[in-house]
Amino acid sequence: MAKGFSIMIFAFIGGSSRYLVGQAMPATTGFPWATLLINLVGCGVLAWLSHAKRLTAHWPEAVTIGLGVGGVGAFTTFSTFSVETVRLLNGQHWGIAAAYLSATLLGGLLCSWLGVWTARRWWTFRVEEE
Amino acid sequence: MAKGFSIMIFAFIGGSSRYLVGQAMPATTGFPWATLLINLVGCGVLAWLSHAKRLTAHWPEAVTIGLGVGGVGAFTTFSTFSVETVRLLNGQHWGIAAAYLSATLLGGLLCSWLGVWTARRWWTFRVEEE
Repeated sequence: MAKGFSIMIFAFIGGSSRYLVGQAMPATTGFPWATLLINLVGCGVLAWLSHAKRLTAHWPEAVTIGLGVGGVGAFTTFSTFSVETVRLLNGQHWGIAAAYLSATLLGGLLCSWLGVWTARRWWTFRVEEE
Repeated sequence: MAKGFSIMIFAFIGGSSRYLVGQAMPATTGFPWATLLINLVGCGVLAWLSHAKRLTAHWPEAVTIGLGVGGVGAFTTFSTFSVETVRLLNGQHWGIAAAYLSATLLGGLLCSWLGVWTARRWWTFRVEEE
């Protein structure tokens, strides 16, 4: 119950923050910088959060799950990324589309990996990965 | 103002719905079906919504933007997709990781394209793409 409520509150904060970042970085160059930045930051934070067990073990479960699933989950977006890519492809901006797609995908995996690595290095117990 | 408020409300609904879908489809098989389904549906809906102009022209702007940016944006998630992929790679489940990655990426682009296509075919004015 507390978990569900926490997810709703954090989703509200995460989704609104995404909108504010988008407003602060208008797409003037044709390259969707705002979505890229949002998704890369979100990947790093979620990966860190779900592996920094030594730190988060002291937090209420509603907070860690609310922050991860609700907050970071609502902050990042796959649908906007995909629709933006299709729009670039439809507009025959092949180079920008390819750059956007690979920066998001490879950058996202790299940031996730970095999040896991730093959390394991400094903020985790020696536990086996489930 | 109304736009910002609408985005917040819809983000709340979108993020909570993602959690509920995840709860209804527990990851028993090792393949993240819930995230895949959420992201594919979200891509189709957002693409449709942002191109179905004949229909949405009659809606208040706060509703279309709230639903798209807030609702569908918070429903889909790039961070969970990326962290799940890194987890599969770290666990050396190469085949599942490759299948998940390509199903999400190609499926997402296909669903976005389908959303654009159906909206243009039936629910749009004959307008030039911006």
